[in-house]
Amino acid sequence: MSDLKPTADAPRSPGRPRSTRADEAIIEAVLDLLAEGSTIEALSIEAVATRAGVGKATIYRRWPGKDALLMDALRRLKGVVAQPAGHSVRDDLVLLVGAVGHNVDPRAERIMPCLVPEVNRSPDHFQLYQNIIEPRRKIMREVLRRGVATGELRADLDIEVAMALLTGPMLIQRLMRWHPELDDRLLPENVVDGVLDGLRAR
Amino acid sequence: MSDLKPTADAPRSPGRPRSTRADEAIIEAVLDLLAEGSTIEALSIEAVATRAGVGKATIYRRWPGKDALLMDALRRLKGVVAQPAGHSVRDDLVLLVGAVGHNVDPRAERIMPCLVPEVNRSPDHFQLYQNIIEPRRKIMREVLRRGVATGELRADLDIEVAMALLTGPMLIQRLMRWHPELDDRLLPENVVDGVLDGLRAR
Repeated sequence: MSDLKPTADAPRSPGRPRSTRADEAIIEAVLDLLAEGSTIEALSIEAVATRAGVGKATIYRRWPGKDALLMDALRRLKGVVAQPAGHSVRDDLVLLVGAVGHNVDPRAERIMPCLVPEVNRSPDHFQLYQNIIEPRRKIMREVLRRGVATGELRADLDIEVAMALLTGPMLIQRLMRWHPELDDRLLPENVVDGVLDGLRAR
Repeated sequence: MSDLKPTADAPRSPGRPRSTRADEAIIEAVLDLLAEGSTIEALSIEAVATRAGVGKATIYRRWPGKDALLMDALRRLKGVVAQPAGHSVRDDLVLLVGAVGHNVDPRAERIMPCLVPEVNRSPDHFQLYQNIIEPRRKIMREVLRRGVATGELRADLDIEVAMALLTGPMLIQRLMRWHPELDDRLLPENVVDGVLDGLRAR
């Protein structure tokens, strides 16, 4: 349940063991409201409190405001970050690419695609969203840099483009069911091997 | 304005030159309602008629039903299909990849991401959406097959995976502004060259 911890800017006051159930209910209320079609804009602490069956003060005691609460709720959809083993760049990438677009919570399927255009309209929310995905990006970036350093990958690799090449195919398939005939189970390996080896005849 | 032609299953009755303005108003009404957050489910012929300032009969004279109208409206967002020159597989792919996720209508940015989860819940709507993107897929598939035939691309190429590799990075960037630091103008070339050449050191 480590994903339920408040963000760094919302220190939990000690000695509050009863709070776990309220935390849970509040996070669940946020995700339910978003999955039912609430926009970020329309989502209010009041609506969350009503849905969770708690008072507004209970929420403010745990989170400094809507954005911090939202960030904890969205982070919860994704579960824990995958940790690569560090032996082979190819195998590490298969692990990381397999985690792209993977959500542990089925509500993500309704929440995430709709969230994107709204997030993009607000600089604050855009930053909030980047904060959620950046730790995952950082791990992939490190694996790619290691590959360049060990000589497994090209010395002139554009790391950011490489990340888009590896992430894009998984995201469109998982978030948008882009192509009904692609085999989701084989896709992480197919994407990594395809991008590493290239399509050109040699 | 060829994009405004009714679908094949909705033959236009001849001798109706005044209809263009009504066609336009009806299509605009659909796109406005979707951009304002209407779900496909909630979108009714009645709501479209009210918004367009026409009678329901005017709509039914032009389209057999909501799905045919919706398909024409969504197709309109994307504009005309790019036609590759057929000289170099690499250059043709740059053209086609550059058109991925490109919408001529700014409302697409609000409509498309939110549409996806809804479309995926209904087999009819999923098929409708596939009908819109399949002609574009077909052209890319043909370029890739030609590349295999000419020896430019690997003989063992998995065409569907290759299409996902080429399409995914563009779609996440254009539809979701996935990575703020990627240069959108250079991306089609970077994606095609990256995927063709591969990331592995040689």
